[in-house]
Formats: sequence, C-alpha cells, structure tokens
Amino acid sequence: MSEHPDLGKLKERLGEISDLRGAQSLLGWDQRTIMPQKGAGVRASRIATLGKISHDLFVADETGQLLDSLTELEQSLPFDSDDASLIRVTRRDYEKAKVIPTELTVAFSLAESAGYQAWVEARATSDYTILLPHLERIVELHRQAIALHRAANEEVEDDYDILLDDYEPGLKASEVSRVFDLLKNATIPLVEHIRAKPDAVDDSLVHGDFPVETQRSLVTTLARRLGYTDDAWRLDTTQHPFASSMSTQDIRITTRYYPDFLNPALFGTMHEFGHGLYEHGVSPELERTPLCRGASMAFHESQSRMWENLIGRGRPFWDYGLPELKRAFPDHFAGADEDAIYRAVNKFGPSLIRVEADELTYNLHIIIRFELERDIFSGTVPLADLPAAWNAKVQEYLGIDVPDDAQGVLQDVHWGSGAFGYFPTYALGNVVAAQLWERIARDLPDLDGDVSRGDFGPLRDWLGENIHRHGRKFGPNQLLERVVGVDRFDPQPLVRYLTTKVEGLYGA
Amino acid sequence: MSEHPDLGKLKERLGEISDLRGAQSLLGWDQRTIMPQKGAGVRASRIATLGKISHDLFVADETGQLLDSLTELEQSLPFDSDDASLIRVTRRDYEKAKVIPTELTVAFSLAESAGYQAWVEARATSDYTILLPHLERIVELHRQAIALHRAANEEVEDDYDILLDDYEPGLKASEVSRVFDLLKNATIPLVEHIRAKPDAVDDSLVHGDFPVETQRSLVTTLARRLGYTDDAWRLDTTQHPFASSMSTQDIRITTRYYPDFLNPALFGTMHEFGHGLYEHGVSPELERTPLCRGASMAFHESQSRMWENLIGRGRPFWDYGLPELKRAFPDHFAGADEDAIYRAVNKFGPSLIRVEADELTYNLHIIIRFELERDIFSGTVPLADLPAAWNAKVQEYLGIDVPDDAQGVLQDVHWGSGAFGYFPTYALGNVVAAQLWERIARDLPDLDGDVSRGDFGPLRDWLGENIHRHGRKFGPNQLLERVVGVDRFDPQPLVRYLTTKVEGLYGA
Repeated sequence: MSEHPDLGKLKERLGEISDLRGAQSLLGWDQRTIMPQKGAGVRASRIATLGKISHDLFVADETGQLLDSLTELEQSLPFDSDDASLIRVTRRDYEKAKVIPTELTVAFSLAESAGYQAWVEARATSDYTILLPHLERIVELHRQAIALHRAANEEVEDDYDILLDDYEPGLKASEVSRVFDLLKNATIPLVEHIRAKPDAVDDSLVHGDFPVETQRSLVTTLARRLGYTDDAWRLDTTQHPFASSMSTQDIRITTRYYPDFLNPALFGTMHEFGHGLYEHGVSPELERTPLCRGASMAFHESQSRMWENLIGRGRPFWDYGLPELKRAFPDHFAGADEDAIYRAVNKFGPSLIRVEADELTYNLHIIIRFELERDIFSGTVPLADLPAAWNAKVQEYLGIDVPDDAQGVLQDVHWGSGAFGYFPTYALGNVVAAQLWERIARDLPDLDGDVSRGDFGPLRDWLGENIHRHGRKFGPNQLLERVVGVDRFDPQPLVRYLTTKVEGLYGA
Repeated sequence: MSEHPDLGKLKERLGEISDLRGAQSLLGWDQRTIMPQKGAGVRASRIATLGKISHDLFVADETGQLLDSLTELEQSLPFDSDDASLIRVTRRDYEKAKVIPTELTVAFSLAESAGYQAWVEARATSDYTILLPHLERIVELHRQAIALHRAANEEVEDDYDILLDDYEPGLKASEVSRVFDLLKNATIPLVEHIRAKPDAVDDSLVHGDFPVETQRSLVTTLARRLGYTDDAWRLDTTQHPFASSMSTQDIRITTRYYPDFLNPALFGTMHEFGHGLYEHGVSPELERTPLCRGASMAFHESQSRMWENLIGRGRPFWDYGLPELKRAFPDHFAGADEDAIYRAVNKFGPSLIRVEADELTYNLHIIIRFELERDIFSGTVPLADLPAAWNAKVQEYLGIDVPDDAQGVLQDVHWGSGAFGYFPTYALGNVVAAQLWERIARDLPDLDGDVSRGDFGPLRDWLGENIHRHGRKFGPNQLLERVVGVDRFDPQPLVRYLTTKVEGLYGA
C-alpha cells in the first residue's frame, strides 16, 4: 500500500519544522554550555527567527488543509499506529498553535533570551531587581497568550490550565491541587518525624575533597555503564544542568561539579541520563516528526527521577557503585561500606535549594512554586512582592529562613526563561516514577539483583519497550493507562515508597 | 532622515536570512568539532532544510521587488555607504542565487554532508573508491548549476569562472592562470635552489615530545596575546582546522595537536586566528546582514596567512615567541636562541601535505589542485583517474612520489564537501597578504619592533581600519584599489618576499 500523498506532504512539512526546532535546540544547548558570553545578543535573534519561521510554517493554512484531508485516513488506521498518532497529535498542536500570532512567539523568544541573561546576572549578584522587569514582561506576554486561548476556546476553566497544557497536555490545575494536597498531607508528618532526629543519618561521606577531573571521569564511567555511548551522546558542564537532544542519535546531557560535594555531579548526571535515555529510545520511525519527544514533561521527569532516585539513591545500586567510588577516590572511601554510602546519599531534611533537596522535601519545594505561580497569575502576589512571598512560603512549609534571594526566589532558571506552569511536572514526575516502579517491580522480579551487579540492561529494555519508543504518540494519561492500568496521576505509590524509605532510614 | 520603508523591509528579510545562515554555521561547526558521530544523518537534513528555507526566502520575488524599489535610493547615496553597499551587494547575490532552483541547493547540501562523511572514512582508510561516487555526484550537480548560470548569462567565458565566482566574486580563470604562471616561474628556480642545500636549515627544534595539554595552554596564551578574548572567541580541536563565526562577537577557531611536532598547533592557531580576527572586526553596523563576512576568500586567506607566515614565521616574532616556548617546554628549548627557532620554523622543501608545506612550495600545491580542477571540469581527467593524475602532478612540480592516497588526493576536505573553485583563493591569499604587507610596512614603520615586543595592537588596528570593518561592502578588486592602489592581484610582492626570505635562509 503506497502512502497517501497528503501524508507525505504533511511529513515533509513536519520534517522541515523538526529541522528548524532541532537547530534551535543546538543554538540553545550551545548558549547554555559553551558559547562565548558576548555571543548572546545575536544568538537571541537567531533563536527568535527560527522560532518565527517554524511557527509560520506550522500554522499556515496548508497545514490545516493537509490535516483535514487526512481525517479519513486517520480514522481508518489503528489508534496507536504511527501515522494515526502523527495526524492526531499534530492536529491538537495545530489547533493550539494557530491561536498565537507569530509576533507573539517572537516576543516570547526575545523576552526569554533576555530574561535568561538577566537571571544569570541576578543570581550571581543576588539582586532580584535585575530580574524583575524581565519577569513583568514575560508574565504580561503570558497574559496575552492566555487571553487569546480563552477567546478561541470557551471551555477553559482556569487560566493556569493554559500554562500547564504546554508541558502536560490536558492537565488541569484542579487535578494538580488534588494530587499535591494528598502529597502534602502525607509529607508533612514525615518531615516532622525526620526533624526530630537530625543526627540519625551521617552524610559526611559525600563531602570532602573531590577534584573535578576525577569526578568527571567517575561520572562518565558511570554514565557509560548506565547506557551512555560516546558515538551518540555528549556530557558537558553547565551552571544549571539540563538535557537536550539534536536527534535520537545525538543526545546532550550536562552536569556541574562541586569540588567539595559529590552529589551534584553524581546524581545530576544520573538525572540527566534519564532524560537523555528517553529521547534516545524514541523509535527511529518517529525521527524528524513532532512525535520524537517525550509524552509530557511529567513523563520525562519520571525517567530522570527514576535513574536519579529509585536507582541511584536505592540500596542495590551501591553494591555496584561503591567500588566505583573507591576506584575514583581510594583514600576518601577506604573504610566505607555499602550501607554507609546508601545512608549518606539519603540524608533527609529541609533545605534551601530545590535541586539539592532530598526526595521527600523536594515535593514541598515544587508545591511552593506551584502555589506562587497560581498567586502571580491570579494577581494575589504582585511580582515586586515575590521574594517576600517566597520567603514566607519556605518558612511555612520547610521551617527555614531564606538568607538571600540567590538561595531563594532566584535559584531556578525557569521563570526568567519564561517557563510558568512547568514546575508542577517535577513533582508529578516523582509521582509517575513511583507508579511505574511498582509495575516494573512486578515485571522484573530480579531488578534489585541486576542493579546491584551494575546490569542496567533489563531496566533499559523495559523502559524502551513500554515508554520510550512511543515518543509522543500517547498523552500522559493514555500512556499511564497502557503501562500501569490507571489513567491518572496517583500519588499513593510515591507516598508508600517515601514512607517505607524514611522509616528504613530514620526508624518507624 | 528616517529610513526608506523598503530598506527596513529588506534589512528585516536579510536579517532573517542571516539568522538562518548563522544557525547553519553553528550546525556545521558542531558537526566538525564535537558532534557525536551518529548524529550525522539527521544533522545533514537540518543543514539542508535551513539552506532550503534561506534560499527560498532570498530568491523570492519580494526580494527582487524591494531591490528594484531601492535603486533610486542606492544611486543617491555614496558608493561606500553601508546602505548603498548593502543594496548593491545584495542585488549581485540575488541575480546569481535566483538562477538556482531550491531543489538543487538541497541536493548540493545533502551531497556535501554525505561527501564529508565519506571523505572522513576514505582518508582514514586511504581508500579513494569510498569517496569516488560522492565526487561523481557533486561534480554532476556543479555541471547542472553551471548550465543554469550559462543559460542565464551569455557573457560567461569559461565554466570554471562560475565555480570561482562563489569564492572570489568576479575573478576569471584566465586571471588565475596569469597570476599562477608568474608565480610558478618564479617559484621553480627557488625550489631548485633549496633542493641543492637540503641540510642548510635544521628543524629539529620543532620536533620532540610536546604533551597536548601543554601545547593547548601555549597556543591559548599566544592567541590571547594576538587578540583572542575569552568572552568572544572559542578555540577547539578538530581534524581539519577551520574558523567560523556565529556573529562578530562569537568567533570559533579550531586547531589540532601533534604530540611530536609543534608546527600544526602553533601555526594552525595563528592561521585561524587571522580568519577569526577578520570576522570579529567587521563593523557592528553590518551585523545580521550579508555584508557581515570577508570581501572574498582570497582576502580572508590573506589575513590568515599574514598571521601565520608574515608574522608567525618572521624573525621579529620570535623575540617575543621564544620566551613563551621556553616557559611551556623549558627543557626542550633550554639552549635555543631566536635565530635557531626562526630557522627551524622555516625549513623549505617539497613535501606531500599542503597544510604542512613551507611558504614557497605551498603555492605549487595549490597550482596542482587548480590545474586538476580545470581538467575535471573540461573532462580531460575522469574522476576515476584523479589519483593517478594527482600523483603525476606531484611528481612533476614537487619531484616526489605519493605513497598512498591519504597523503595524496584524499588529504583535503574540500572536494568531498563540494568545494570546487576554492583552492586558488589560498595562493591568491598569499599574493594579497604580500601586497598588503608592503603597504603596512610603509604605514607602520615600527611594526618589527612592535611584533618583537609582542605588541600586536598597531597591526590589529591597521587591519581593522583598512580591511576588517568593511566586511563585504567592497569586492576584492575594489578593496585592493582602496588599500594598495592597484585593482588586481599582483604576485610580484610575494615573489620579492619569498626571494628575500629564501636567500636569507639558504644563501643567494
């Protein structure tokens, strides 16, 4: 059977759009890792122009006409076929994208580049006033976009749903609140339990003198064992680690090194490896299509958090991992045993910096950001008052004082780069990871043994087969339904996991 | 006076085209320096699509209409004004580009990417048959383009002129032959003179044990002294060194390190620095326009060869340079004096590899390539016979046998990547460098003193003021006329320079 000619035309158009977005990815990756600083000005124009052209190409009437003419074909194909999925997902993207005029996408792109540069400076000097005008501009642009979406779609319940939808298709703020309330109610007693035993876990093993070059070599060895290969991946250094991909065969992960603290490079690399493995595992058939990404940001984050926490902060991993640490830093780890390193990487307790938080308090960091984003867009918290509101929430949920904005409201890159509605997907990623983990435990009964032997192949294969290869063919709920049989975020597996873990470390 | 509205529209369009080409530059730089190998397939599509879109945008009727409507404005402005130059140069580019259909630009782009990958493999295995089908394809595409240009322009005298024009606007093959014949006739007796004294110059000082990391630090120190700054430049490692720029403030140069031979990294870095400085010095007013490049490839090469040879292989440089070598490799250079290192970096004599050739025989390497390109396009030498034809020419001009194709016809990246008509600009770059150098010597009477003190500021300023800032506003002949008062390539300054240098080193 030969391909419908309009399907060929649609794929050609989407292939070109993928090429433009792939080029944008490289421009962005380069900007955040290795670009000389003065390149920023022109770089922002380059990125904005590519975004403009790909937006124009995508929202053109021809795209809509091709989609219309393919409706019958789509209905004749199985729901989960590549072609039906391509048409279905593209139609959803198209309906949403065409609401936004090109000038607004360019304005966003330029505001995000400028905001990113301002954030770098603001954080370095702990000066929120440098970032403030950029946040004002970005929030104003979001308000314009929200108004356009509302005008096009009367069914929108909540402005915030529109922000969420960019990262988590179909998710509602009300659903996030439901999940987060359950999570918060289960978390707070556990945090109190831990606070009562501040010395129960000793993490001195992960602090010390760790030369950066040795760390780099250690985490590269580790990444290769997990599945990184030199012919299809890169590992670079950056300020705010991230993963991106130029294609399924060109995966870029980044990390950062603290000379006196092992966790950031170690767990940062495992985290970004999880993101990278997802994009590396998408079916080659989906290359150069809009399906060649993850199902949603929560699903993406489920993969990174799984490798970082469920593997990397699990006890079995350290049977394999400790000998690697001993090879890299023989003196420091000379007397350490597997239980000691397992405990050291699992010190729980309230802290200031999200990306360094333990698995339990991490979700509170996210809940703080979610609530503040709600307040910003409802108008309850003016942006000028955001640092004070931040500090009050940190005191309320974590019980600690924020000494300066660099360790407070300025710690994350997201808002300055335009990403509102993104943070919730981090905690939802933890939720999904735990949902998947219960399923994996049933499907791979010897997983703990594999991991303790440093054999990550069975887990990689399971993830590839059940999740990665599908790319973006299914929405997050559809994919949850397929894999765990429940079509929504369920925080209970995460609560069970955290409760067991905390009790194991801190006593019941 | 406010800007003509169509001029604003033209600049906007050209700005977007510049953004697309800037993104292509980054895709290409990344591909040739740090991309994981398996990224090559999709990368080729990305590059081709960006080329297609920028070509479409440029050759669109709107571009022609804007140019037409700006004719009067152009004529009312001084010839050397930025705006008149922009309109004039863009019109020439437009007339030429619109001859080529988009499909042909895409076919070229894909053939060049595939050819580059094939060349890497062919050179590594010294197997010309891997490259041959790619060369056949590329030459066939060039023939198609030549036929289209001939159909559009009856005044074309010689097919080869069309190839040249992409790199050296307006240059004719007959003019290249005139210059090269003069150069050849002056060079051959000098080569014979040198061959009679094979032991007159001892280059053992530049051979030895030079750890790569120390070399990297040395050439970075050197580049900084020349004018490289960390906030606007990068220096990376590659197989076949090149320079490219993402904007005037984001200059990327590359080099390669031989652990037992200092010249490639040392002179390679100075060479690419010269290219980089040219693009770094273009007036900020020309950023994001098609004028934001060099006047021609010969002019570009005049800059790289000037820093590599007229500075780097000159005697004054080593008053500054030798102490740097002694700091980097104290044992190796302990007993060396300035005259000894000057002589060591100036060993003349026939050799196999162009990029390692001395200043004199270098031009013979180029003449060989020029003559072979003429033979390929006239049909005298079928591509299957190219290795034999190559080896015969090397024997004829340089008097040496080529042991294998890796050191022969496969040594250069150019043909496999589609660049025919490019090689002549290298020797013409030497010609232009010597023309400029005689002028500079008059304008900067203490240049030798500056250079021996490691003060490159006066030369940088002269080049910036007289050449770099103009970007591509003037054609090569116009720029020569402005700077040295002669509107053509004149090989006599180069012949004088080489004769003096050879006699100084090898006796009269």
